Amino acid sequence: MKKTAKKVLVIHGPNLNLLGRRETDIYGMKSLSAINKSISVLASELGIHVKTIQLNSEGDIVNVIHKGGYDALIINPAAYTHTSVAIRDAIAAVGKPTIEVHLSNISRREEFRKLSFITGVSVGQISGFGPESYLLALRAAASILSQ
Amino acid sequence: MKKTAKKVLVIHGPNLNLLGRRETDIYGMKSLSAINKSISVLASELGIHVKTIQLNSEGDIVNVIHKGGYDALIINPAAYTHTSVAIRDAIAAVGKPTIEVHLSNISRREEFRKLSFITGVSVGQISGFGPESYLLALRAAASILSQ
Amino acid sequence: MKKTAKKVLVIHGPNLNLLGRRETDIYGMKSLSAINKSISVLASELGIHVKTIQLNSEGDIVNVIHKGGYDALIINPAAYTHTSVAIRDAIAAVGKPTIEVHLSNISRREEFRKLSFITGVSVGQISGFGPESYLLALRAAASILSQ
Amino acid sequence: MKKTAKKVLVIHGPNLNLLGRRETDIYGMKSLSAINKSISVLASELGIHVKTIQLNSEGDIVNVIHKGGYDALIINPAAYTHTSVAIRDAIAAVGKPTIEVHLSNISRREEFRKLSFITGVSVGQISGFGPESYLLALRAAASILSQ
Amino acid sequence: MKKTAKKVLVIHGPNLNLLGRRETDIYGMKSLSAINKSISVLASELGIHVKTIQLNSEGDIVNVIHKGGYDALIINPAAYTHTSVAIRDAIAAVGKPTIEVHLSNISRREEFRKLSFITGVSVGQISGFGPESYLLALRAAASILSQ
Amino acid sequence: MKKTAKKVLVIHGPNLNLLGRRETDIYGMKSLSAINKSISVLASELGIHVKTIQLNSEGDIVNVIHKGGYDALIINPAAYTHTSVAIRDAIAAVGKPTIEVHLSNISRREEFRKLSFITGVSVGQISGFGPESYLLALRAAASILSQ
Amino acid sequence: MKKTAKKVLVIHGPNLNLLGRRETDIYGMKSLSAINKSISVLASELGIHVKTIQLNSEGDIVNVIHKGGYDALIINPAAYTHTSVAIRDAIAAVGKPTIEVHLSNISRREEFRKLSFITGVSVGQISGFGPESYLLALRAAASILSQ
Amino acid sequence: MKKTAKKVLVIHGPNLNLLGRRETDIYGMKSLSAINKSISVLASELGIHVKTIQLNSEGDIVNVIHKGGYDALIINPAAYTHTSVAIRDAIAAVGKPTIEVHLSNISRREEFRKLSFITGVSVGQISGFGPESYLLALRAAASILSQ
Amino acid sequence: MKKTAKKVLVIHGPNLNLLGRRETDIYGMKSLSAINKSISVLASELGIHVKTIQLNSEGDIVNVIHKGGYDALIINPAAYTHTSVAIRDAIAAVGKPTIEVHLSNISRREEFRKLSFITGVSVGQISGFGPESYLLALRAAASILSQ
Amino acid sequence: MKKTAKKVLVIHGPNLNLLGRRETDIYGMKSLSAINKSISVLASELGIHVKTIQLNSEGDIVNVIHKGGYDALIINPAAYTHTSVAIRDAIAAVGKPTIEVHLSNISRREEFRKLSFITGVSVGQISGFGPESYLLALRAAASILSQ
Amino acid sequence: MKKTAKKVLVIHGPNLNLLGRRETDIYGMKSLSAINKSISVLASELGIHVKTIQLNSEGDIVNVIHKGGYDALIINPAAYTHTSVAIRDAIAAVGKPTIEVHLSNISRREEFRKLSFITGVSVGQISGFGPESYLLALRAAASILSQ
Amino acid sequence: MKKTAKKVLVIHGPNLNLLGRRETDIYGMKSLSAINKSISVLASELGIHVKTIQLNSEGDIVNVIHKGGYDALIINPAAYTHTSVAIRDAIAAVGKPTIEVHLSNISRREEFRKLSFITGVSVGQISGFGPESYLLALRAAASILSQ
Repeated sequence: MKKTAKKVLVIHGPNLNLLGRRETDIYGMKSLSAINKSISVLASELGIHVKTIQLNSEGDIVNVIHKGGYDALIINPAAYTHTSVAIRDAIAAVGKPTIEVHLSNISRREEFRKLSFITGVSVGQISGFGPESYLLALRAAASILSQ
Repeated sequence: MKKTAKKVLVIHGPNLNLLGRRETDIYGMKSLSAINKSISVLASELGIHVKTIQLNSEGDIVNVIHKGGYDALIINPAAYTHTSVAIRDAIAAVGKPTIEVHLSNISRREEFRKLSFITGVSVGQISGFGPESYLLALRAAASILSQ
Repeated sequence: MKKTAKKVLVIHGPNLNLLGRRETDIYGMKSLSAINKSISVLASELGIHVKTIQLNSEGDIVNVIHKGGYDALIINPAAYTHTSVAIRDAIAAVGKPTIEVHLSNISRREEFRKLSFITGVSVGQISGFGPESYLLALRAAASILSQ
Repeated sequence: MKKTAKKVLVIHGPNLNLLGRRETDIYGMKSLSAINKSISVLASELGIHVKTIQLNSEGDIVNVIHKGGYDALIINPAAYTHTSVAIRDAIAAVGKPTIEVHLSNISRREEFRKLSFITGVSVGQISGFGPESYLLALRAAASILSQ
Repeated sequence: MKKTAKKVLVIHGPNLNLLGRRETDIYGMKSLSAINKSISVLASELGIHVKTIQLNSEGDIVNVIHKGGYDALIINPAAYTHTSVAIRDAIAAVGKPTIEVHLSNISRREEFRKLSFITGVSVGQISGFGPESYLLALRAAASILSQ
Repeated sequence: MKKTAKKVLVIHGPNLNLLGRRETDIYGMKSLSAINKSISVLASELGIHVKTIQLNSEGDIVNVIHKGGYDALIINPAAYTHTSVAIRDAIAAVGKPTIEVHLSNISRREEFRKLSFITGVSVGQISGFGPESYLLALRAAASILSQ
Repeated sequence: MKKTAKKVLVIHGPNLNLLGRRETDIYGMKSLSAINKSISVLASELGIHVKTIQLNSEGDIVNVIHKGGYDALIINPAAYTHTSVAIRDAIAAVGKPTIEVHLSNISRREEFRKLSFITGVSVGQISGFGPESYLLALRAAASILSQ
Repeated sequence: MKKTAKKVLVIHGPNLNLLGRRETDIYGMKSLSAINKSISVLASELGIHVKTIQLNSEGDIVNVIHKGGYDALIINPAAYTHTSVAIRDAIAAVGKPTIEVHLSNISRREEFRKLSFITGVSVGQISGFGPESYLLALRAAASILSQ
Repeated sequence: MKKTAKKVLVIHGPNLNLLGRRETDIYGMKSLSAINKSISVLASELGIHVKTIQLNSEGDIVNVIHKGGYDALIINPAAYTHTSVAIRDAIAAVGKPTIEVHLSNISRREEFRKLSFITGVSVGQISGFGPESYLLALRAAASILSQ
Repeated sequence: MKKTAKKVLVIHGPNLNLLGRRETDIYGMKSLSAINKSISVLASELGIHVKTIQLNSEGDIVNVIHKGGYDALIINPAAYTHTSVAIRDAIAAVGKPTIEVHLSNISRREEFRKLSFITGVSVGQISGFGPESYLLALRAAASILSQ
Repeated sequence: MKKTAKKVLVIHGPNLNLLGRRETDIYGMKSLSAINKSISVLASELGIHVKTIQLNSEGDIVNVIHKGGYDALIINPAAYTHTSVAIRDAIAAVGKPTIEVHLSNISRREEFRKLSFITGVSVGQISGFGPESYLLALRAAASILSQ
Repeated sequence: MKKTAKKVLVIHGPNLNLLGRRETDIYGMKSLSAINKSISVLASELGIHVKTIQLNSEGDIVNVIHKGGYDALIINPAAYTHTSVAIRDAIAAVGKPTIEVHLSNISRREEFRKLSFITGVSVGQISGFGPESYLLALRAAASILSQ
């Protein structure tokens, strides 16, 4: 009997819809749709069903996390990394393995970006590798889901 | 002449829709609808009109507080307790007596849960008694409204 | 066979003997004996045996907690809330369900009143409702003892 | 050939819809629509196209900032001043000259109102002059856009 | 008709019973009874009734403050200066003009001696002049009571 | 009967005499005399008598504030913003409406420039608009004086 | 001529009377009287006169320290470790060699248990060895007194 | 042979020239010259030569302290209490007994007024008694100089 | 012409030689040699030359980093993450792209493990995925070296 | 059958090789070899095999801890007490009962000596008794190993 | 053609006029004029024109720095090291190479002497060598000016 | 009889072996051997025997300090400035006059570089002058040794 493919939800947090169009010196030239395409390609290769979504509102992210339909969560919480206890609590409540992703090395930026509310409820973190961060996270998710 | 019944609005903050389904070791087995039912029963007994609502978005909670139609507010701000100045300002602006409720004893949890933006604009706080916290808050509201 | 009534001890901490006579703008007009009377009335109604005591000395409060003879403890630690590890340790050592009560909303007062050593060893807190705080605490105790 | 009029977007943050109706001792008697009218009058005088909007949700403010259609931004972030990295990042990403406005002198209020996430991405700040703050900001915007 | 003499209570806090016998390099050679004698002599001269008492227990100090029978209070809270909210609250509750006295210049000693809970509820402080501090405090009390 | 023109004193704090000659990348190319000229022009237009003065010594600034002869004060305290309680106390003692001005956005500079002793005694602040900051402050003063 | 035996006073601080009866997982199964017996046995062996006392009140501990009649002091200040400057001052005033003892490794417990007011006036500390801590302290005292 | 009268210098710090004319609710109705007169009267009575001076500039105060010609110094450093290391160093360098005086109870005011650079180099402090503070300081100086 | 394979050095910091033998509940059952084997397998697959080394001494790690012979560095600094500025400076001085790896999610452990001196000089971090963290880091290195 | 003697390793940290030769006012006149001799004598008496070693390098201490061959560890980490997470992790990884020893009362010295990374992984601490501290630790180890 | 000699200005800050006369245990026996003489001697030797000045007022120091006429500045800011942003800004505005000098090792003194506002705008610092510090600074200046 | 030349040991801390080869924008183009040559030249001129050594390991630096054979120590502790109590204790134990040297102005770099454990045990510091810092330190050593 065939095993069902695992499902991974990728949430892109606030302002990431502007990727590749603004502040390209920090965030790179690649647009969000290009990143999503790379994610899909790798997902196929790994035999994983992946769904991506970009949201600017904290409440909407909480709702999407609640709705379920995934086996693991990859989240780039962007600005909400540092301010959202609600997203943290949503991840903790749902209890799915979660991987925190950042494009840039947030520890090298402003002091207030050093605190992450999400780290305490995620399995692990990958940060600093630009769009590659998502692909590494997908591989990490695949590894976790295959255990 | 008959006195009109007082109206109390009960706001359940983010993630509380998952009550009784997730992390039941911390938050207990009782679902939100069961809690709302207990609230209604006690409200009838106390001769109070009660309305309950659950919201995951900070902005929606601000809007509901603005809309009025209540004499006192009972709010379990959940994650927004620690991060929302907007809800604090909404409560202060509207100026209705407000009671802050928490299911768990938040002082026993993570350090960041010790700060409450809501406490400074509420009449009093009740925390740590599980669903019973709401019932005690309703009695407190009744007592305040009867003065 | 008849169930024995549960026993609740109510400890009023330092300076509360002056209630109703001093600083009535902050603490209200009701004297401690009037408050104790309200507590007794509600206790009868709830079928609980209640005993109240007011003490100004930290060591005496520790001793009373040790002596036992109660199923649950309601304590308004007043000034000792912020300075007494000894009372905290006494409550923890005896291990009876304990409810922390405050007449005023202590979070709205001086900065040093924000720290409570007692919260970490109590089931829950009720603060800000004036003498009503004690009655809510008694109901909470009744609820806990009936489980 | 005629020069096109510059466009300025004025964002009023959470709870400002209640201006003139609540806490008039702090925020004054003038309603938001009256303020918007004054802004329009001065805009005409300065030859600027102005658009005003009031929003209670952090995510909605991020979206409006993204949507563009303005040459400069005037924002009174109200409660989000102190808690929103998402709005900060939106302003930084879009990169339009931005002026931070406050009705009251926020440094004279609660300690937590002293931190502004917005200041780091704005050209300048104007605070403490009541509705006049907006008019000064509009003049500042005109001056910046004319350079 | 003759005016009744004003009454001043002088409370010496913990360990001051050892004055003149121990650590004389810091606290001087004068015993507590010698100090009390000087206080009496000056009191007679100023036409004031003075009563002195030395207590090692925080609760006893609270009780003595409650008991009243004085128009002004001079207190050297010694070690309790830095740890007793209960004595602070007792002084505030009773509401008599209170003068805080210290033999040594406490700001020149350990870091933890820089905080005084008593200062916030006293009219003024006199510190650093050895036994003379009490005599200056008595003159200050006389001045306040004669107004 | 004709109304007398209102008088505004503009104090430029330490080192501002070097404006336009040094660190022009931060403070701009405009010299202090050119700024004063712009201020005069706008003052005439607004029907206000304005006097400007530049001082490097804290004590001299205190003395000028004491001397009076003005209805409102505009002050760019420069370095003394962060270190002078004496200027703060002088402004508070004299009690004239005071506007704090900064050429640059001080929140974007060194950490120690984030504290302002002056903000607590000023009506409002305007910062970050270069020489334009003074003109906006003059308009704000005019608005305040016309009320 | 025979040398007189040295005298050691052992003070057990607040709540230690409950040893062996409560929280035995933290403090062990041995009762205070059993501990005192072990202390006596070792004292005989070392040729030392030992006296033990348990007190719950800070003021009583101060008084016992003042009373003297011992050559060295062993004290387990328990909760007062972290809150009593009065006991610290008493030890300093009396000036006898003092050894601070703790049953548990206090550095592994709550943050507020990391501060000890007593350490600054004691010769040394022994903590973490359960009842054995007292016996080691007695040996340390013997060693100090024999020098 | 007659003993020469001791000389005391009284320095009034910045803004004290406005005493009795401004903020009389805080600082009282008595002008500085009236205070100086009371000081002179008491000085005569105590057989002390007293000289008073008021200065707004930190450097001038340092210079006056250097110039000498006094046996003891009474200083109300006002705003410089909290910001002047230079005055502190001048007092330490000259080495005359110095008494720090404050009209108001500075511990009850803003947080930044709690730090005093002067306390560490003064014999003692007297604060909170209004103009009476100076008279008590003069008596303290007389006592010190007579030893 | 064939391109030369890129070289990656993997440094395992202090105590990692004990992997799989101790504290397997935290660090897992896999030994360091097994991890090194997995790294080699993946390196072959990616066409990378990899060398692994485990060192317990800070100075030795600095020396190995200096010696060079690699195009990118993967380092699990273990305990030195939080205490070694020397390793940080070595990485910065040599200037090769560096990836920081942690087996566990260090943000979930003791407070002192939250500070990393290494993050500020690394391209990115991967933490929390156990031995998989190294494999992800190797893929990240491959991606960086192929650019 | 005879029970094998237990083995205890005593590690003397950095700079302790200079004992008795330098700073004898702080650390006493006794050399390290004399201390080691006293340790051996007591070990024989207690029937314990003891081995002592002095090391100046953090990495060497980690290696010695790893090498094993002991049932309990006594360590005077000296300077590494305050800076070495690596030694802490080595102790935790090996998991043998460990006793932390200090010659002096470190809490009475510089502020940075108050933090110990070792305390969190040791059974207990003994400090302040000079060379006697080691002997007490050996007795404590004997007691632990005999349980 | 002969090269013109470089000019160095040496500023001695507040209270340094008392050198050699007061607190000679800390600052040494050498008077300021003797130090100035040594500076002149070395300057001649190095072929540098040197000018020395001592000032007690912050504003005067700012003015002297503005006046120019020097190629490099040597400043011992004394007490103003820790409190003067104005002197810092003056140095930054003028932009001449500046060397910060201290007679004593300021890091070994009071905590508040550890912060220097001047360090951030100086090339380097020399402290702790007494009057020799100035001579080393002069050599450093010569070295900088000869580059 | 000829006086023996004084001996100075110069210790270059971790990573300084890379001087002139890496990060030349910060540390300059001069190699360590070139610096050592300059030091030797000046030493000859001053009649001092100098020995230089570069070490990357903290333990090795401690050992070299212990070994002695020098009258004064010049140390650039580099990264260990901020993390090594062991080197501090070694310097204190050996008790030779020690001068702390830094090539760059460490106060202008990262926050964690502001703390120096070495300053508290050194005579003085010289920082910010590049390789010249060592030469100034050698002159300072010569001056100290000639006293």
